[in-house]
Amino acid sequence: MSSLEPSRRDTRLDPYIDQYADRTGSMTVSAVRALFAVANRPEVVSLAGGMPNIADLPLADLGASFDQLIQTKGVQAMQYGSGQGELFMREKIVEVMAEEAITANPDDVVITCGSQQALDLVTRIFIDPGDVILAEAPSYVGAMGTFNAYQAQIHHVEMDEDGLLPDALRQAVVALRAAGKAVKFLYTIPNFNNPTGITQPLERRREVLAVARELGVLVVEDNPYGLLTIEGEPIDAMRSMDPEVIYLGSFSKTFAPGFRVGWVLAPHAVRERLTIAQEAAVLSPPVFSQFAIANYLDNFDWRGQIATFRSMYQARRDAMLDGLSAHMPTGTTWTSPNGGFFVWVTLPEGLDSQALLPRAVNERVAYVPGTAFYADGFGSRNMRLSYCFPTPERIYEGTRRLGKAIADELEMHATFGLDTGEHRHTDRNLGPAPDVS
Amino acid sequence: MSSLEPSRRDTRLDPYIDQYADRTGSMTVSAVRALFAVANRPEVVSLAGGMPNIADLPLADLGASFDQLIQTKGVQAMQYGSGQGELFMREKIVEVMAEEAITANPDDVVITCGSQQALDLVTRIFIDPGDVILAEAPSYVGAMGTFNAYQAQIHHVEMDEDGLLPDALRQAVVALRAAGKAVKFLYTIPNFNNPTGITQPLERRREVLAVARELGVLVVEDNPYGLLTIEGEPIDAMRSMDPEVIYLGSFSKTFAPGFRVGWVLAPHAVRERLTIAQEAAVLSPPVFSQFAIANYLDNFDWRGQIATFRSMYQARRDAMLDGLSAHMPTGTTWTSPNGGFFVWVTLPEGLDSQALLPRAVNERVAYVPGTAFYADGFGSRNMRLSYCFPTPERIYEGTRRLGKAIADELEMHATFGLDTGEHRHTDRNLGPAPDVS
Repeated sequence: MSSLEPSRRDTRLDPYIDQYADRTGSMTVSAVRALFAVANRPEVVSLAGGMPNIADLPLADLGASFDQLIQTKGVQAMQYGSGQGELFMREKIVEVMAEEAITANPDDVVITCGSQQALDLVTRIFIDPGDVILAEAPSYVGAMGTFNAYQAQIHHVEMDEDGLLPDALRQAVVALRAAGKAVKFLYTIPNFNNPTGITQPLERRREVLAVARELGVLVVEDNPYGLLTIEGEPIDAMRSMDPEVIYLGSFSKTFAPGFRVGWVLAPHAVRERLTIAQEAAVLSPPVFSQFAIANYLDNFDWRGQIATFRSMYQARRDAMLDGLSAHMPTGTTWTSPNGGFFVWVTLPEGLDSQALLPRAVNERVAYVPGTAFYADGFGSRNMRLSYCFPTPERIYEGTRRLGKAIADELEMHATFGLDTGEHRHTDRNLGPAPDVS
Repeated sequence: MSSLEPSRRDTRLDPYIDQYADRTGSMTVSAVRALFAVANRPEVVSLAGGMPNIADLPLADLGASFDQLIQTKGVQAMQYGSGQGELFMREKIVEVMAEEAITANPDDVVITCGSQQALDLVTRIFIDPGDVILAEAPSYVGAMGTFNAYQAQIHHVEMDEDGLLPDALRQAVVALRAAGKAVKFLYTIPNFNNPTGITQPLERRREVLAVARELGVLVVEDNPYGLLTIEGEPIDAMRSMDPEVIYLGSFSKTFAPGFRVGWVLAPHAVRERLTIAQEAAVLSPPVFSQFAIANYLDNFDWRGQIATFRSMYQARRDAMLDGLSAHMPTGTTWTSPNGGFFVWVTLPEGLDSQALLPRAVNERVAYVPGTAFYADGFGSRNMRLSYCFPTPERIYEGTRRLGKAIADELEMHATFGLDTGEHRHTDRNLGPAPDVS
């Protein structure tokens, strides 16, 4: 990962340095966080963040309905709650999951403080130091931060333009087991993968599940963006085809992230452990937030709101794809997502997205370098661009600035003939089909 | 701990049993949770829970102010936030801590999902499996659940009626280190300790801190109840005397627990690690909750509300102490807290609080058996009674029912002459001064 290691000087000044747990060795400031300081400057078009645009929410009506909520249910909503999460919230979540063909029992749902905490709890109950978690190559930087915090070994599985390669999954599991490793689960984002935007078609999901079942590997399906499908309907969730799949969901993208309400749907025995782990972690997940979200789902047209979000993100995605077509130098390729927040760019051979970043920021555009999404140093030729937050005009302008930065970098390389040998790692990106734009 | 182990049958039925992390070995259903099912029956007076009574909050005005909050700041309040917590919230927290003589910088505060999560993060960054955490004998069941989840070894330090014994602390550290153990920190609740209600006077705090400093042991001060002091003013926090103390605070008792907002104040280097751990755990602590609480602190007389809570809890505490004086059989002793939520009862010799529980529930009163608050099997002659939630009349009636249950149990022992030898453990309770009522 492209983490910024605490500097040697800082480390020497920390009087507690000998006291920390071994797991803190992997706790470094994430590239994403370090970027925020830069990307937040108003003159910079940030294509780096993953913040949803929630400006379209009906604030006046929401305010009035919160007033009602406090006056009628305030004493319960502001009290401690269940460690597993409130039953009414779990029932609503079962309704939401039905939109992606999932049949579930509210008793098998555990509410979490955002789906980030769902990752934390699943990792906590399954991972001993050194255990292997399989993940797409590339995968979500925040999930890998959690996996590292529990000293997991992250092993990437190759993708093509349809997502995870079933044969690569099989080979990885067989090879890792032969090496004596405990492969605990596959972590996958089948819809609009973060960072690539790639989606697994239905048939590919079946194939991946078949391999996982055959080899006895648990599947953890992370699905924050599924309902934000732009064209057509969401593809059935993997969990809808296999009740053994552990499924992570969230209201952060379909409603609002500030309430920090996500969930895990898990087989009953696993759910039991997750609840106990949750009680030790936070006693109860945010209670008022659960009342607030259930209140929203009960009294507002949440499906209509999602449709509004979909068109809004469609316009932003189109602005980004149009901008990339117009401004990217030859040799640059990118993915064309049908939903979610992200486009994955592969730079012309010889370029390095981390080395390019200062030049890009100088042109007033920011992104996340691809290495952040690999646990093993790959991704130097890639970058993640997000189209979720800025306006379409700003996004288009951002791609123009980015195109200029890349062109300038290419020109410098042509002039000074920089050695491209050091970028040999990048031949792995997206494996057999690098050009998926 | 008096945990209910998952039954052998359940364990055999769990198809994932070989997959779980080692740390789940300590994850058992807590006695507190198992009790909720019983205690929630309306005919039972529950002296078991630790829920604050928040019925006195000004709901109508709160509702209107939430409406305003959403309309004016909704887009920020419902968005992702900072991993460390919002600056405005950390500034308000510094103001709240000043009430207990603490001088701090908002930059050294990390917001957590309730102070339970503060415990989780502190344990996460300091504890490797087998490391020792020192805690009062007895100590908070929820903290021990967290410590167990990280495979810490909990070592209890004796108390008297003024809290932790400095000499016992010194002896424990020396002996544990001589045995090759890594003693990572002392966890202490100096105000109205949960479960005993005992408070360390100022001089005792100084003595404990002196020993900790001399031996280089970190102190983690957990202070959820300090501002709920009944007579007189809160005693200065340990953190106010030593900036190296890691301090845990919470709005759960001074405002409302449903927002799940607590915090850690820590030395700068430690704060840095906590923030990184927090990002891996939940990305950002509940954002809307922080806006809601800051809004409350800005627009309501929160000091006046705490004064209201103090008189309300005083009436409840008095009802409990009056009831115990009136109804407890000879040989029963109890603590007299000056705040917080709990009274700690020591039963006449020969009685066992777990064995007594079914009889008590039959009399329609519930409590938490003392063994829940020890990591090492002690506490069988004790029970924790809470006076925070039921009305004074119900509390008084609860002590009457409890007195009858104890008297009946004593009579049965007198009749059948049960062997008291099996209760030898209990001679440790509260060490040299068992009768502190």
